[in-house]
Amino acid sequence: MAEKLIIFDTTLRDGEQSPGASMTKDEKIRIAKQLERLKVDVIEAGFAASSAGDFDAIKAIASLVRDSTVCSLARANDKDIQRAADALAESDNKRIHTFIATSALHMEKKLRMSPDQVYEQARNAVRFARKFTDNVEFSPEDGSRSDLDFLCRVLEGVIAEGATTINIADTVGYGVPELYGNLVKTLRERIPNSDKAVWSVHCHNDLGMAVANSLAGVQIGGARQVECTINGLGERAGNTSLEEIVMAVKTRKDYFGLELGIDTTQIVPASKMVSQVTGFVVQPNKAVVGANAFAHASGIHQDGVLKARDTYEIMRAEDVGWATNKIVLGKLSGRNAFKQRLQELGVELESEADLNAAFVRFKDLADKKADIYDEDILAIVSDEAAAAHEKEYFRFVSLSQHSETGERPHAKIVFSIDGAEVSGDSDGNGPVDATLNAIESKVGSGAELILYSVNAITNGTQAQGEVTVRLSKSGRIVNGVGTDPDIVAASAKAYIAALNRLQSKTEKLNPQL
Amino acid sequence: MAEKLIIFDTTLRDGEQSPGASMTKDEKIRIAKQLERLKVDVIEAGFAASSAGDFDAIKAIASLVRDSTVCSLARANDKDIQRAADALAESDNKRIHTFIATSALHMEKKLRMSPDQVYEQARNAVRFARKFTDNVEFSPEDGSRSDLDFLCRVLEGVIAEGATTINIADTVGYGVPELYGNLVKTLRERIPNSDKAVWSVHCHNDLGMAVANSLAGVQIGGARQVECTINGLGERAGNTSLEEIVMAVKTRKDYFGLELGIDTTQIVPASKMVSQVTGFVVQPNKAVVGANAFAHASGIHQDGVLKARDTYEIMRAEDVGWATNKIVLGKLSGRNAFKQRLQELGVELESEADLNAAFVRFKDLADKKADIYDEDILAIVSDEAAAAHEKEYFRFVSLSQHSETGERPHAKIVFSIDGAEVSGDSDGNGPVDATLNAIESKVGSGAELILYSVNAITNGTQAQGEVTVRLSKSGRIVNGVGTDPDIVAASAKAYIAALNRLQSKTEKLNPQL
Repeated sequence: MAEKLIIFDTTLRDGEQSPGASMTKDEKIRIAKQLERLKVDVIEAGFAASSAGDFDAIKAIASLVRDSTVCSLARANDKDIQRAADALAESDNKRIHTFIATSALHMEKKLRMSPDQVYEQARNAVRFARKFTDNVEFSPEDGSRSDLDFLCRVLEGVIAEGATTINIADTVGYGVPELYGNLVKTLRERIPNSDKAVWSVHCHNDLGMAVANSLAGVQIGGARQVECTINGLGERAGNTSLEEIVMAVKTRKDYFGLELGIDTTQIVPASKMVSQVTGFVVQPNKAVVGANAFAHASGIHQDGVLKARDTYEIMRAEDVGWATNKIVLGKLSGRNAFKQRLQELGVELESEADLNAAFVRFKDLADKKADIYDEDILAIVSDEAAAAHEKEYFRFVSLSQHSETGERPHAKIVFSIDGAEVSGDSDGNGPVDATLNAIESKVGSGAELILYSVNAITNGTQAQGEVTVRLSKSGRIVNGVGTDPDIVAASAKAYIAALNRLQSKTEKLNPQL
Repeated sequence: MAEKLIIFDTTLRDGEQSPGASMTKDEKIRIAKQLERLKVDVIEAGFAASSAGDFDAIKAIASLVRDSTVCSLARANDKDIQRAADALAESDNKRIHTFIATSALHMEKKLRMSPDQVYEQARNAVRFARKFTDNVEFSPEDGSRSDLDFLCRVLEGVIAEGATTINIADTVGYGVPELYGNLVKTLRERIPNSDKAVWSVHCHNDLGMAVANSLAGVQIGGARQVECTINGLGERAGNTSLEEIVMAVKTRKDYFGLELGIDTTQIVPASKMVSQVTGFVVQPNKAVVGANAFAHASGIHQDGVLKARDTYEIMRAEDVGWATNKIVLGKLSGRNAFKQRLQELGVELESEADLNAAFVRFKDLADKKADIYDEDILAIVSDEAAAAHEKEYFRFVSLSQHSETGERPHAKIVFSIDGAEVSGDSDGNGPVDATLNAIESKVGSGAELILYSVNAITNGTQAQGEVTVRLSKSGRIVNGVGTDPDIVAASAKAYIAALNRLQSKTEKLNPQL
């Protein structure tokens, strides 16, 4: 039996560190449930000590997820580790992931500690973490730029204390496969007790080589865990893409010779969910999950015999969860059919009241749109979840807008601020500009719009528009997503969602792993 | 002095094979001029024998581009090669790139030729191509799945005939760095006259490893040319990204030890141009050219000393052409200022009449929008070029639309069909749906809308919206792009642009290199 490669997903921790990608607790729960369906081995659900919101999200995920290990990040001190342990208390299958910087620069400038102090603190942290679970991961922060002798000493020390996973990060995405693979190899060869831990790789994609570096860590270095995110979400150019790692190892099993626990048919649903929640679009020419990944130019179909699947396709679209859009429900579908489809999609609404509210929205949509697809249902649930579970400061009520060539577009919006309805109206360069101006005429947020994009959720002109707006204010960046068959209304909802996020201030720590 | 790595850009040939990415002649010229500013060594401008449009585009580029070598693809027969030579006639610095399949499957099923016949035809083709230029590239199609002995025989033969570049493609993106690098190494070691040619790599990104595979071909295999595209444009998951290859080789010069001729500050302008022309968005977490590539999460700025550039950034945003948007022109700017900025942007309009038309559009826009950015100017020129140089069958005239919560959105459009004005009106689920329905009520194309997306060209609510629609009809896929401060009007323009592309039928060959 081949060895297993452990897939450690950090979409909810390192992915969320990407500017604009912050998620609410409910969004994190929805993604965690999807990661469980995807059968990832470990879900890094957050960094418990970094904020109250992260703590709550980890706690909720730890109580809901059963099939995957749930992990929290923690700095190498008792307070952080206690906080992680508290958040994970309800899980039977938990991991604490602790880290401390080991590079000279970080030790001196950030930690203001001597190497001996760092060595002791790392050992103490792992020892303390082992009181709560026998599944403890240790990462040397900025490890790839640390002194090799010192790094070996620290890693040997933490393994002796019971660290079961050792994670080597290429923090700045500077690695090339050969060198990074050899770093992991050298560490494993030099550290006497290295066989007592599973070795892990964690790469960033700044030079477009995160996947290849990770796989070199596996193939050359002997790592048996890869840390990755859905869609490669993450700071700057992102983290290693889960979908690319999984399909490379699966498709080239002849070369890697490793087993995976992943249900690959859940990859595309996971990709769409993460894209929808964060507002980070996936480009058409993205491997595995891009809209074009399995589409060939029309000309190719001309000589069929050569274009057979085994000649030019090395993966099948259905293997990764691309399915032809199915018209699943329509105007005449009843509450039971809707409920059943939600269950098939793995969506669990918390109460009958939530189900009823979602069903009302479904019927509204079915009045406007003949064919309802899975993506529409997920959008309804997504909006419903936001509306039902968050105390929203701003709330969309209604919109009227008009534009005509040669005249200045005009919009009138009604929305509520902290429960009180207000009405604003404005003109603008286009109907969206007029609508956002109308909102700002009453809110005066002073936020800067730094990104605006629209994607259709399904194909065809009847599709709902999904609008993402990204606002920047005082150095903070937030995304808001809004969905409506009317893209001007969707823009208003997205802008209001972003204003709500600006309203709820959460400062978080962003470790460089 | 270090050896040079030759950058061969095939955005206009293999990139254009991506479904929906087809470009007009004027668009290709604009991109070719930008590639010249980027100082790519070789521009593969098209496949002359594949269509009259490709022939014309190559001919125009061959006469306009001086600093880069201009290349045309050609099958290994005299007719194709003659066609390539004719298209390239006006260039002083040209290359003919010829190819033939060498795998057993392709030879038998597609070519219906014996290996000996293929061997002879490959030699003949290179010999014939050498009559027109001493710069001849040969690619064995499906080379990575060809019999190694036969492949060596063919490659030795074509080098003996004077092929100066030998290109090894990983057609299906199936390669892993170690194996692909070793394939190139083995070929170079086994072929006696291999030192008479420059070896080239051409990879696809299906498993997310195109960059790493290409660089393994360079580092392990000794290749000195990389074939790549801007933004990794290309079929399925795309080709090797030019920007990632260039920045990896530049940033890790300590490891690769190679020189590049590229002006990296032209990378982001090239990326934006290709994205704008093709309607293929670049995702925020794309290496080098994504909006987030150089953006860090807000929290990071808290402890400044560690966040110094040398700690977490390995490239500088300005090195690759990311500049803060500059307000370059406004309402009061005159014709000379506009003309000067066009020259600074490297845009050359063909006549004074074109310049005047563009200036009128600029003034119209400046009336609506206080600040005009470089991106706006490029959008104006882009639209102007489309309007001025193409005989458009459908043309936008004016639009009026209204939507209001609780009512059904409605749109009325005026456009011309082959010069005659028509007016259509319709309702729809949203104002965009209503507008497209209104167009279809008069056109009845029956095309299916398979993608709809909007991106703002610049930041801020005053930004113009750039809409991409992708239509599918009878197996053909076309993109249309439209720009307007009013995104509903931009949607109408994009839909009309796509209808015009469906109208102009061009069938092309799409070789699998």
